[in-house]
Amino acid sequence: MTSWNTPAEVLVSAVELAARCGGEVVGSPEGSLGGVAPLESAGPDKLAFLSNPKYLSQVHDTGAGAVVLSRADLDKLGADSDGRTWIVSANPYAFFARAAQLFAKVREVQPGRAASAHVAPDAVVPDSCEIGPFVSIGAGAVLGERVRLLGHVHIGEGAAVGDDSVIHPHVSLYHGCVIGKRCIVHSGTVIGSDGFGFAPDFGPKGGEWVKIPQTGRAVVGDDVEIGANCSIDRGAMADTVIEPGCKLDNQIQIAHNVRVGAFTVIAGCAAIAGSTTVGKFCMIGGSANLAGHLTVADKTIISGGTSVTKSIAKPGQYTSVFPIMPHGDWEKNAALVRQLSSLRERLRKLENLFKSNSST
Amino acid sequence: MTSWNTPAEVLVSAVELAARCGGEVVGSPEGSLGGVAPLESAGPDKLAFLSNPKYLSQVHDTGAGAVVLSRADLDKLGADSDGRTWIVSANPYAFFARAAQLFAKVREVQPGRAASAHVAPDAVVPDSCEIGPFVSIGAGAVLGERVRLLGHVHIGEGAAVGDDSVIHPHVSLYHGCVIGKRCIVHSGTVIGSDGFGFAPDFGPKGGEWVKIPQTGRAVVGDDVEIGANCSIDRGAMADTVIEPGCKLDNQIQIAHNVRVGAFTVIAGCAAIAGSTTVGKFCMIGGSANLAGHLTVADKTIISGGTSVTKSIAKPGQYTSVFPIMPHGDWEKNAALVRQLSSLRERLRKLENLFKSNSST
Amino acid sequence: MTSWNTPAEVLVSAVELAARCGGEVVGSPEGSLGGVAPLESAGPDKLAFLSNPKYLSQVHDTGAGAVVLSRADLDKLGADSDGRTWIVSANPYAFFARAAQLFAKVREVQPGRAASAHVAPDAVVPDSCEIGPFVSIGAGAVLGERVRLLGHVHIGEGAAVGDDSVIHPHVSLYHGCVIGKRCIVHSGTVIGSDGFGFAPDFGPKGGEWVKIPQTGRAVVGDDVEIGANCSIDRGAMADTVIEPGCKLDNQIQIAHNVRVGAFTVIAGCAAIAGSTTVGKFCMIGGSANLAGHLTVADKTIISGGTSVTKSIAKPGQYTSVFPIMPHGDWEKNAALVRQLSSLRERLRKLENLFKSNSST
Repeated sequence: MTSWNTPAEVLVSAVELAARCGGEVVGSPEGSLGGVAPLESAGPDKLAFLSNPKYLSQVHDTGAGAVVLSRADLDKLGADSDGRTWIVSANPYAFFARAAQLFAKVREVQPGRAASAHVAPDAVVPDSCEIGPFVSIGAGAVLGERVRLLGHVHIGEGAAVGDDSVIHPHVSLYHGCVIGKRCIVHSGTVIGSDGFGFAPDFGPKGGEWVKIPQTGRAVVGDDVEIGANCSIDRGAMADTVIEPGCKLDNQIQIAHNVRVGAFTVIAGCAAIAGSTTVGKFCMIGGSANLAGHLTVADKTIISGGTSVTKSIAKPGQYTSVFPIMPHGDWEKNAALVRQLSSLRERLRKLENLFKSNSST
Repeated sequence: MTSWNTPAEVLVSAVELAARCGGEVVGSPEGSLGGVAPLESAGPDKLAFLSNPKYLSQVHDTGAGAVVLSRADLDKLGADSDGRTWIVSANPYAFFARAAQLFAKVREVQPGRAASAHVAPDAVVPDSCEIGPFVSIGAGAVLGERVRLLGHVHIGEGAAVGDDSVIHPHVSLYHGCVIGKRCIVHSGTVIGSDGFGFAPDFGPKGGEWVKIPQTGRAVVGDDVEIGANCSIDRGAMADTVIEPGCKLDNQIQIAHNVRVGAFTVIAGCAAIAGSTTVGKFCMIGGSANLAGHLTVADKTIISGGTSVTKSIAKPGQYTSVFPIMPHGDWEKNAALVRQLSSLRERLRKLENLFKSNSST
Repeated sequence: MTSWNTPAEVLVSAVELAARCGGEVVGSPEGSLGGVAPLESAGPDKLAFLSNPKYLSQVHDTGAGAVVLSRADLDKLGADSDGRTWIVSANPYAFFARAAQLFAKVREVQPGRAASAHVAPDAVVPDSCEIGPFVSIGAGAVLGERVRLLGHVHIGEGAAVGDDSVIHPHVSLYHGCVIGKRCIVHSGTVIGSDGFGFAPDFGPKGGEWVKIPQTGRAVVGDDVEIGANCSIDRGAMADTVIEPGCKLDNQIQIAHNVRVGAFTVIAGCAAIAGSTTVGKFCMIGGSANLAGHLTVADKTIISGGTSVTKSIAKPGQYTSVFPIMPHGDWEKNAALVRQLSSLRERLRKLENLFKSNSST
């Protein structure tokens, strides 16, 4: 039995760490490191990082055994840098993340199948997989090598999960849907539920919303992480697609036939309505919502809480949030927002009066 | 083993299709159809549909074997319609949906009970039901005929599910709650969790939020579809009610003692706070939120992202979304929103000055 | 087999009820009570309550066997109060809540372990616990006395749940995370999923979002209730903390390293981004969202639907909601919001013209 996140027992020299994570030791090569920590609390066996020059002063006082930073920031320190251990990296934050992964010793796959798991006879489940308790795997489903289903996971008929993916408890992957390689899906997420499509058919005698069968799939590319309690619907006829390298936070809603471009990141509680296409390398803020049938350009940034009501053709940051204020002020200003057309009308009148007055 | 969404093996003649879905063949009755597709990609064995006259030009070029459309749109085509197969319907979109259902051959009930299911001895589970792996059914629960619980479903004590309903994996139906007939509930949805009710009782020495027992039920009517990861709380004393024919998308929050009127549709991530009553045939947009204790008239449309802060007595569309703009523009305009009262004051002064000036 | 929420069989005298819930009988001590009900529908065996003086007139007409109210409100009734049973309490609403608890006879712990439960050999599970079907408890996990895991619950390795807590079906508690004593966690909630942390590392040849290991915990204090389908992420290095006495509604997102102060209440679908600290005794409205790295003062009230984009140092109520209006009006006013800087410019010009005109 292995536990998660065991603190590293073995110290790594700064030189070895630099080599493994893509940096170079400058100054004293003596330091030995056993973990990562913030500048302000790091001890002599910890690596800290500086990615924003405005925290340079914290570097003076840190007790960290080594600090990873950019060449430019090290130069700024000048004489202050003497006698200490520095790791210079082109991307100190990414170096820090890789070092943290190394120290965190994330729990590895433990091949085997819980006695309580329910696996259809014709499902493909390699011996290298870890199948936890109360997992059900439907007929015709296909798992790659070293897939981990950590308990209570439902894999629908004919669904597929790629090599080295980790699926946390209580995830539902509907029939025929696909998760790529090296993905992480957190608990409670649903992939492949029916899209929201109904044709109204009401007459004088009543009627119904006629369900439009959702016969497409939900397809999640390689290296995607999806947080807890997300919902990614299958497509109506074509597929819903999350392209490779995307990262989704918790409680995100992706409607049918949406396409999210590669490497786009989406923060918690955002929602994308049906048939909208989001470009690559976009950043969508928390609780933002995008209307349906839109196109959003690559590298667009949507601020948190923003409602996107039309397509965005030009990259940049976009916002639609009423400014926060004390409630009493809000009552006054919100009332005036309702009267903006009449305010403008009064302004126009005054302008006209002034003009006619001046001309007399 | 049956798979989902098998493509139809058998072709249906246009005439038979028209008869089964409520339309009439006009022009060539030769076509045989095996599925549905969009106008732009349909092949000769596919049915396409035209519901919006602005896509009439696409009809010229479609390779579809048949197109369902309204009589008026067919008339507009005039000579263009010669020699092809048309199906005329009063509601082409609903015809299309019904045809799609027919072709999709949605997976049917497979009566039986997984060995791993846990069914209380006194629960009523007809032989026609399909009970998947790891389903638990509590004491006194009652299922109708042909109910499908597709695995990992929790049916609480004394809860009930009506005939022909389909409950996807990881759904929780709390004790005593009710789902009607022909309902579909997607994965991760919770029905009957406690409403959010607490009485504050704090004094100088501390205190607590005293829980108000939630003794009502959550009651979902017939023909309701509920998407993934929704939460429908039970009522405090009376019930929370979703009336028949409603359609709810994913991640919708329905608080205690809410009533949603028949045939109302609610898009993803919308939330309705406690004791609010929504009328019949309403359309609530995605990520909209309704405050508590409101009444919303029948046939009201709430735009996506809208916060409903007061009751709505008159049908129509309502909106409360700050307009989206580039972030730099937003910074300027949002700052001015905070100053609207002072802008108005300046305008007023100017008006007064102008008046007094003019009168001198 | 016990059922939930059984109506009380035994009537309690008003005098006994007052003694048990913290009040005093005034007027006739004759009444015997078997439940609670609203003023307008209560019968002679029911307790009703008056907490808002504006409903005093309803007290005249109520058929309730007893009414709990404040001394001040009773005095206002004067002669109207003669011959009836009153219970005077400093906090009638809290008295009512406690009485309701007493009558509701909430289902009690039924010690035992379902045959289908999967409990690691070294997990600590006292005999007083109730472990439902399909529960999995990981290695090294520790449950307190009388903990109830009501089925389909996942308790990760080394996680802990305190005495008398109730965990509803389909909850995931990740490895190493902690739930306090007397907590209630509703279905579908996820506690301890990875926080959303990635370091961008992209170059001309491509790149990736490098995952930052989330090695902190999620720690939930005593007496916390968490609704359905919430997501509470574990911290990046330090912990995410929900302090004691908090109450969270459904579908709430708490990001990594957030701290929510004691006794704060959060309504449904609210979201708090990473590293934000919310004070004690705050009230956060439904569908509100807080940006990351903020500090919110104790006793702050955030209106429903509000986006909090900066720290709040001073208690009070804050709002950021565009006022709702008919969609046609919205189109006009929203267009003007985009032009506020030009409106102000026009006003300024007019002011200047006026000044120069006056001075000539």
